[in-house]
Amino acid sequence: MSANFAKVVMERCAALGQISDEPSRLTRTFASPAMHRANRLVGAWMRQAGMKTRTDAIGNLIGHYRGRKPGAKILLLGSHLDTVRQAGKFDGPLGVILAISCIEKLHRQEVRLPFAIEVVGFADEEGVRYQTACLGSKVLAGCFDARDLRRKDANGIALADAIKRFGGIPTKLPSARLHPKNLLGYVEVHIEQGPVLEQKNLAVGVVTAIAGQSRFKISFTGCAGHAGTVPMNLRRDALCAAAEFIVAVESFARKTNGLVATIGQIHAEPGASNVIPGVATLTLDVRHAKDPVRLAGCMALQKLARRIAGTRKIMVIWRPVQQTASVPCSPQFSRRLRRAVQSHQREVAALPSGAGHDAAMMARITPAAMLFVRCQGGVSHHPDESVRSADVRVAFEVVNSFLQRLAADYP
Amino acid sequence: MSANFAKVVMERCAALGQISDEPSRLTRTFASPAMHRANRLVGAWMRQAGMKTRTDAIGNLIGHYRGRKPGAKILLLGSHLDTVRQAGKFDGPLGVILAISCIEKLHRQEVRLPFAIEVVGFADEEGVRYQTACLGSKVLAGCFDARDLRRKDANGIALADAIKRFGGIPTKLPSARLHPKNLLGYVEVHIEQGPVLEQKNLAVGVVTAIAGQSRFKISFTGCAGHAGTVPMNLRRDALCAAAEFIVAVESFARKTNGLVATIGQIHAEPGASNVIPGVATLTLDVRHAKDPVRLAGCMALQKLARRIAGTRKIMVIWRPVQQTASVPCSPQFSRRLRRAVQSHQREVAALPSGAGHDAAMMARITPAAMLFVRCQGGVSHHPDESVRSADVRVAFEVVNSFLQRLAADYP
Repeated sequence: MSANFAKVVMERCAALGQISDEPSRLTRTFASPAMHRANRLVGAWMRQAGMKTRTDAIGNLIGHYRGRKPGAKILLLGSHLDTVRQAGKFDGPLGVILAISCIEKLHRQEVRLPFAIEVVGFADEEGVRYQTACLGSKVLAGCFDARDLRRKDANGIALADAIKRFGGIPTKLPSARLHPKNLLGYVEVHIEQGPVLEQKNLAVGVVTAIAGQSRFKISFTGCAGHAGTVPMNLRRDALCAAAEFIVAVESFARKTNGLVATIGQIHAEPGASNVIPGVATLTLDVRHAKDPVRLAGCMALQKLARRIAGTRKIMVIWRPVQQTASVPCSPQFSRRLRRAVQSHQREVAALPSGAGHDAAMMARITPAAMLFVRCQGGVSHHPDESVRSADVRVAFEVVNSFLQRLAADYP
Repeated sequence: MSANFAKVVMERCAALGQISDEPSRLTRTFASPAMHRANRLVGAWMRQAGMKTRTDAIGNLIGHYRGRKPGAKILLLGSHLDTVRQAGKFDGPLGVILAISCIEKLHRQEVRLPFAIEVVGFADEEGVRYQTACLGSKVLAGCFDARDLRRKDANGIALADAIKRFGGIPTKLPSARLHPKNLLGYVEVHIEQGPVLEQKNLAVGVVTAIAGQSRFKISFTGCAGHAGTVPMNLRRDALCAAAEFIVAVESFARKTNGLVATIGQIHAEPGASNVIPGVATLTLDVRHAKDPVRLAGCMALQKLARRIAGTRKIMVIWRPVQQTASVPCSPQFSRRLRRAVQSHQREVAALPSGAGHDAAMMARITPAAMLFVRCQGGVSHHPDESVRSADVRVAFEVVNSFLQRLAADYP
């Protein structure tokens, strides 16, 4: 039977993947016409699964499946319904649609649990339209910054106006927050967006923490010169210094368990093939599930940059751009998830999430846990994003087991 | 007295530096209005120095100082009068103006040599307007490619039309070539454009060869991925491969005497701070005075790129963009120049030219030699280009000695 549910999940992901703001590719940004249609479609699925639906002040779609008794605590399941530009079908929607199918199963079997369940389709996680991520979960977690209402999108439309046009109420965002005392916890199913589960040949894995992140902009300044006339020993080549740093960063990260460090952008000036670069600028992105490891790593990398630059008589400017603390998943909920995984998979993989998720916001108000589903080649944020039906079935069974055990243990 | 001549040379370089196609900086490109004014001014200086002047079919300005007897062979002196955009005052004009002063000295002393001297102000060496260098010396050397007449500048003006508007005759370019049997040789004074003479604390140096050059475009292709979710050991980071290559290129060039290798441009794709680069593309410029050393170096670097890429499961594409053979200076003329330098400087520096020069073209038809003059910080192609009057004086004396000795040895 769960194979049928998995099939439905796959079909629904495909159907939702057709709802886009752009004709030839999937792009569904916050409070856009496509989000309207997506909420309508997903809301219908929720009601079909026996849920009462509502849309909150920012546009989060919430389906409520009542518990055995009125006033029962609420377990939250969900993920986001918005996408990046030129997106795949699974990043976000999979978690919402799979949760709906879990409720649908309960509903068909006419089962009520000792707690209520709410499935949340967050209105914004990717942050494409307003360049700030997790607007939906920030509102539910009560950490939305009202100053963000003045942000403008690329067409000059303020966030407050976008919310209103979508049918939301900017002034009611504070009261849309969920109250921790009513909540049991939050569980999010999401594609891994990385290759670890594929490498381990496992369908699902339990997330240990959402990694903290440090971003820097680093520039090396040496001396530009003629590529033909300045001998090697008289050069102060900024790009050579940057290259030595990139190699050192990679080597350092490889030696530090769980640390990832990436140089994604690089620019050499003046940037002519026959001119020695006088300036090389690059970005550095460092992540680790444990903040002290990340922070120590950043300090070590900064020292490395200074040492490399010093030896080469190069000046280095090290500019922090962004810092985000890591968010550990709830140990208790993650333990429950791991036990549920044990029943359906030969091995329980525990892995950190290098990407940010709504779960990081929800963890502020309630125990949060995440289940990752293997995705092909670790590819995400791309039309090639692909998930196997068999893996979706495992995830479906894991969430069902999790719900049953949580109900059984319920005081 | 030579201090006075040096002073005049400096003043004339400054005056010529005011003649520009752009109001606030020095830009004097081929066949432009500024080149017209420059040729008029320099032509007047030539005539004042006792020369008969002519402008040839492409716009080279040539001053003829006759020898003792009619029909005597001709020694060519000169350099180019065009500049790059936002140029300095000395790159090119110094060689023309200094040669004129040498003739002026002979003229004042009413000295005729057993050979004639022609001072050439080449119409184009930098190749700014038509993206192909040394148009002037190519015509004199008889290696001008008539297909280039169809080249268009940024305003769509064909080279043939530009020549006509300037007063030249495109159809007569072939007959403007100089005949080797009438020539004694070619000597060019030019700023070094590099820091070697400054490093050695010498005013001038004799060029051994104009280095050959190989240019490549190299791309490394790995696999793009999420900067947070792909562990270090599962990455195929194209930029890390490129960085390892850059460091290896630098180290290889440092170990190979006289070789210079430069990565001037680099580009990482997709180029977002939170995405592992899937493709890294860079340029490589390799030069050496000896072709076999350069060619062996290029092969070794290609092997290095392949080895680095292979280890990382990265694909490398190695695309040759341009190859120019090295041009050795005439041993006999260079020996004469070195002897002349010996009389005026404690040490004779012999150094290759990493940059291209008109001398490379002229060497096809006559023994060519070059004298480099120290420039501050090795800076060229920039308004900061700077030459000391004292060094110009040494260069002036060296060329005078060279002329006297050549005359004395003349059969």
